[in-house]
Amino acid sequence: MADVAPQPKRKRELEAEGAEALSTKEKEPGIGNGTSAFVSLPFSGFKVQKVLRESARDKIIFLHGKVNEDSGDGHGEDAVVILEKTPFQLEQVAELLTGSPELKLQFSNDVYSTYHLFPPRQLSDIKATVVYPATERHLQKYLRQDLHLLRETGEDHKNITLPHLESQSLSIQWVYNILDKKAEADRIVFENPDPSDGFVLIPDLKWNQQQLDDLYLIAICHRRGIRSIRDLTTEHLPLLRNILHQGQEAILQRYQVAGDRLRIYLHYLPSYYHLHVHFTALGFEAPGSGVERAHLLAEVIENLECDPNYYQRRTLTFALRTDDPLLRLLQQARQP
Amino acid sequence: MADVAPQPKRKRELEAEGAEALSTKEKEPGIGNGTSAFVSLPFSGFKVQKVLRESARDKIIFLHGKVNEDSGDGHGEDAVVILEKTPFQLEQVAELLTGSPELKLQFSNDVYSTYHLFPPRQLSDIKATVVYPATERHLQKYLRQDLHLLRETGEDHKNITLPHLESQSLSIQWVYNILDKKAEADRIVFENPDPSDGFVLIPDLKWNQQQLDDLYLIAICHRRGIRSIRDLTTEHLPLLRNILHQGQEAILQRYQVAGDRLRIYLHYLPSYYHLHVHFTALGFEAPGSGVERAHLLAEVIENLECDPNYYQRRTLTFALRTDDPLLRLLQQARQP
Repeated sequence: MADVAPQPKRKRELEAEGAEALSTKEKEPGIGNGTSAFVSLPFSGFKVQKVLRESARDKIIFLHGKVNEDSGDGHGEDAVVILEKTPFQLEQVAELLTGSPELKLQFSNDVYSTYHLFPPRQLSDIKATVVYPATERHLQKYLRQDLHLLRETGEDHKNITLPHLESQSLSIQWVYNILDKKAEADRIVFENPDPSDGFVLIPDLKWNQQQLDDLYLIAICHRRGIRSIRDLTTEHLPLLRNILHQGQEAILQRYQVAGDRLRIYLHYLPSYYHLHVHFTALGFEAPGSGVERAHLLAEVIENLECDPNYYQRRTLTFALRTDDPLLRLLQQARQP
Repeated sequence: MADVAPQPKRKRELEAEGAEALSTKEKEPGIGNGTSAFVSLPFSGFKVQKVLRESARDKIIFLHGKVNEDSGDGHGEDAVVILEKTPFQLEQVAELLTGSPELKLQFSNDVYSTYHLFPPRQLSDIKATVVYPATERHLQKYLRQDLHLLRETGEDHKNITLPHLESQSLSIQWVYNILDKKAEADRIVFENPDPSDGFVLIPDLKWNQQQLDDLYLIAICHRRGIRSIRDLTTEHLPLLRNILHQGQEAILQRYQVAGDRLRIYLHYLPSYYHLHVHFTALGFEAPGSGVERAHLLAEVIENLECDPNYYQRRTLTFALRTDDPLLRLLQQARQP
């Protein structure tokens, strides 16, 4: 799945403070409330420096531009502009279609025809967000890194990836805090306390639990030292089967969501190196549910049943960002 | 991945015949080519019956409406209208931001401000697709359904799925039209003409080729009779390797997109039962690139190298809509 920049924290603060300002109706410096007056951009000129991120699917674009180059010392300042097309409102669309919308035919064939439609003003609203002046931190935050697909052999994993991971000494204390009930104990949905074959099932932080639409839970195994799918052998089959069956049963009991409505998988590469399994609503396109990152738990179990060393032997695929040092290390290994 | 209505087969025929009509310049009944003239919808009135599907994320809406109620017997006819906002083109956006775009302030706070932006005409283009008259089959096709995950064994495939498919007699004449150059010949990006191990590489209908963001091409094999991944054996390895390597090379040559920026995979279940491979931009969350539908071509090749009958033996996972008759057939097989 594509790398998606998380909502910047400041954007959430923005929403909160904007709403607050509207409700108190106080005029504070630097805060303006929506009015019906038309305004200008808070800068002059906009010379595109870089497309930070764009999505044809989401109809959104993030641009870094130089502004105000004609004033001050002539060096200009940085701004970020985010443009996003808006979703359709049924009432506006219904009205449009009963009238005579402006159409240019692209082509027609039998019962099918495709057009360019040029709508009235209210249907062409674009959401524009401006960050000005923008700092380097803003630019980095919005910048999408290009992704590169890698195929890691078993040997690559032993000789390159593992040593690299070990050199990073990433802390997973927070995982142990959950397993030891030092944190988030009240969030636990189910637990099998067996130290070898047991696990804790807990809602993922990305799920606000307000709807089942985007249901997302994580099963974290009790046993320590299983870093990723690469460490799995037939020895772990009882654990994996417990997660699969008891996890589904617990979700059915708690949320009345049946097992055939769930996508149950591991990530490779995982976000953290303590074995965990994702349970997501099948209808939800969860980040990381793409084929280049997700491994269905039922298939992992079957692969191990066929071949105890499947995950040590086989070449596995994953995507890395351009600035990930592991990318360079693995690519260098390819040089003859 | 969320259930996305597959592109109807007729839509591809549409493209095929539209392109053919353009090239032969013959006027055939029911076929119209794009011109610069403005047109009307092919019906009068549009009374919304149902929102078949909508996505705020994708800025798309599918509507079922009653039309022509003022004529004929007064009962009206059915039509489906699909509206989708269009992605941003960098050049148009850059020009917009250097000028004085029409803006209404939503709110501002410190360095952040949000606006409603009302753009010039070319930036408000909406893609409109009309299906008229629409049949019950069209309405069902576009209606979003709940999904159920199925695990199909090799035996299930032989005894249930295959007979079910054969009973449906789905036409793939449009695929043969492409392979035989009777349609879309001018869209072909690359061809290996070998009848056994060759293929045609062509942009997918979902990609308007205006940006590389959502690059999407399909490789269709010349050889007939390979229905899906289930039919693959080591006999097909030369074909699969050709698609993988020559396909990547052709995309590099034509679009300067390197192989490590591509997600190359087969669908199971496929939308149509003539073997084809998807090439999508890695950064694009293409519908159907989720783990429950996509199978990376490089891994398919390796699985066959390990075990010639991998795809006849192994249990494969896929999602079916609630109203899919195959769902009931496969579920019934599970009853003790």
